[in-house]
Amino acid sequence: MSIVSDKKTTLIRRLRDSTAQWAKGDGPLNHIVVCTRIRLARNLSGIPFPFKANDEQLRQVLIRSEGLIKNNKHFSSFQSIKLSDLNSRDIQFLIEKRLISIALARLTHPYRAFIYRPDELVSVLVNEEDHIRIQCLLSGLQLKKAWKIIRGYDRKIVREIEYAFDEKEGFLTSCPTNVGTGLRASVMLHLPALLISNKLGEIMSGIVKKGYAVRGFYGEGTNIQGNFFQVSNQITLGLTEEEILDKFEIETKKLIIEEEKSREELILYHKTKIEDQIKRAYGILSNAKIISTKEATELLSKVRFGIELGMLTKIGYDTINRLMLIIQPGYLQLLKNQKMNKDKRDLFRAELIQELLPS
Amino acid sequence: MSIVSDKKTTLIRRLRDSTAQWAKGDGPLNHIVVCTRIRLARNLSGIPFPFKANDEQLRQVLIRSEGLIKNNKHFSSFQSIKLSDLNSRDIQFLIEKRLISIALARLTHPYRAFIYRPDELVSVLVNEEDHIRIQCLLSGLQLKKAWKIIRGYDRKIVREIEYAFDEKEGFLTSCPTNVGTGLRASVMLHLPALLISNKLGEIMSGIVKKGYAVRGFYGEGTNIQGNFFQVSNQITLGLTEEEILDKFEIETKKLIIEEEKSREELILYHKTKIEDQIKRAYGILSNAKIISTKEATELLSKVRFGIELGMLTKIGYDTINRLMLIIQPGYLQLLKNQKMNKDKRDLFRAELIQELLPS
Repeated sequence: MSIVSDKKTTLIRRLRDSTAQWAKGDGPLNHIVVCTRIRLARNLSGIPFPFKANDEQLRQVLIRSEGLIKNNKHFSSFQSIKLSDLNSRDIQFLIEKRLISIALARLTHPYRAFIYRPDELVSVLVNEEDHIRIQCLLSGLQLKKAWKIIRGYDRKIVREIEYAFDEKEGFLTSCPTNVGTGLRASVMLHLPALLISNKLGEIMSGIVKKGYAVRGFYGEGTNIQGNFFQVSNQITLGLTEEEILDKFEIETKKLIIEEEKSREELILYHKTKIEDQIKRAYGILSNAKIISTKEATELLSKVRFGIELGMLTKIGYDTINRLMLIIQPGYLQLLKNQKMNKDKRDLFRAELIQELLPS
Repeated sequence: MSIVSDKKTTLIRRLRDSTAQWAKGDGPLNHIVVCTRIRLARNLSGIPFPFKANDEQLRQVLIRSEGLIKNNKHFSSFQSIKLSDLNSRDIQFLIEKRLISIALARLTHPYRAFIYRPDELVSVLVNEEDHIRIQCLLSGLQLKKAWKIIRGYDRKIVREIEYAFDEKEGFLTSCPTNVGTGLRASVMLHLPALLISNKLGEIMSGIVKKGYAVRGFYGEGTNIQGNFFQVSNQITLGLTEEEILDKFEIETKKLIIEEEKSREELILYHKTKIEDQIKRAYGILSNAKIISTKEATELLSKVRFGIELGMLTKIGYDTINRLMLIIQPGYLQLLKNQKMNKDKRDLFRAELIQELLPS
């Protein structure tokens, strides 16, 4: 084993075993908000955007990005992993753990990397759609805190790297929708009561009309499953970061109130039925010998609902979050350290769930 | 409360709390045969069959049947309950506990009764289709033993009561199909593997062609549920009791072998899938807050299959048998001592199941 692959293996293993800050699940309003994510899109001055850059230019971006770790004490604890050093299973795992984007994984050039704080609070994607994308993930609803953290890192980077910036336009980005602040904020919401009450469709189209996007657990292009909805801002132009986040926080809180109201109604009129579904979900998860990702996700969503409603007390959000991640195909195979077909994964998934669920 | 209804209440309560001999589930071949039942149809000489008898004649039959308890030491431990002393819930409960027949419950005349040994091994129905029907129920496959017991009681009765008997025809009965020996033997079989393997239809039509009847858990006119099949002889004429029972035992053992073969195949090719279904059933039963009779029966059948296959070891046949009985609507209401609508029953049923299932 070469030194590179040895180091890479160690890093991936650490990520496999560690729990990201956000996944601890102890943030504000965690009874509805799983996590808050902010990312900033930034590009290096004088170098074409990645889709127009040649290999040498992409390499320059990578070198200068990785240089942050050596040159800036605020980044000295960060680690860097080049995607070209990874096999497809590792990459799948990093997507599943929300460390890299599907978009970064889909590109094929050899200058892609991600640089991350070991607690996974902050990471930097290199040479995705923009030269660098900085992201911060926190548990619960913490838009302001996430902004404070990411702005801090942004300001540290700008001391080392000159950004493509226009006095009038703001930060220049590969896709025009990001020009200006380059900021995208998103919150992952768990909205089972709105779904059960058939109110979700209307509420979500209202949100979309106001300029927000609604997506599934793994962001852009992923299906909605387990009642998890990722809501994010779309407009970045013409508003300051604080204004974007203030508006977004207001809209998020409206959704939270709607979900809370629906939960109260459900408890008032259908408490036993809801409790029945939650307890059955727990019963199946703790006993099945074979289980698919889809079924497990739906059942974990119900168990999470049980925690949110105070009906299940032996299990916490941290366990649900960890389970939601490790039951994914890539994560599973990494944990078992071998390639597994669907049948084997369905078996191992059931085993893992039973290991983690308190009996 | 009158003395009669006081005594009746005490008897019903004892039956509610006691476990019938057969329900202990420790008989031979109990991995497939739930229980063996033999009944003899007998009529009193000189009195028309019940459907032709007048009230005074029916009353005479009742008095002479109940007289057995006083006059014959072998019956001195027996109890007698008149159906006219019972409300419809109690009657429903007695059907569910397999102590009386649906046919007896459906009649309306006031001279119906059942006389039983407190361990529920032997009971006598009075003024159903025939004047008296003696039945013996044992756990597992015990045709010969059941025959020995019931023949013993039959011989004791005949010392007190003269039967309608013809030298050529044998015992005379209300329905011509019972003339001769008046014997019906039945076995309750649990055949999940044959059902899963899609072999049940063919095997059952073979059995029917040989002159046997196949019915559901509660006998004539009841649906098949939970993979329980009651197989019984139809022909009683022209053969001795021993011949009938020998043939029936051979056929039953053939069914047992077929089921065993199917189980072996299932374990060989689909072990994990079967185990998954069994464990899930257990998980749902031990966690649901609401459950219908139908669903509970199906899940209990799977749990029973788990015991039969050695996959579930913490629970025994006695618990399954008791659960199969007490989850029925009448039994439930008797246990709660109140009338309950379906919603309340579904709640209480789930509660009871969780009380009895080992966690």
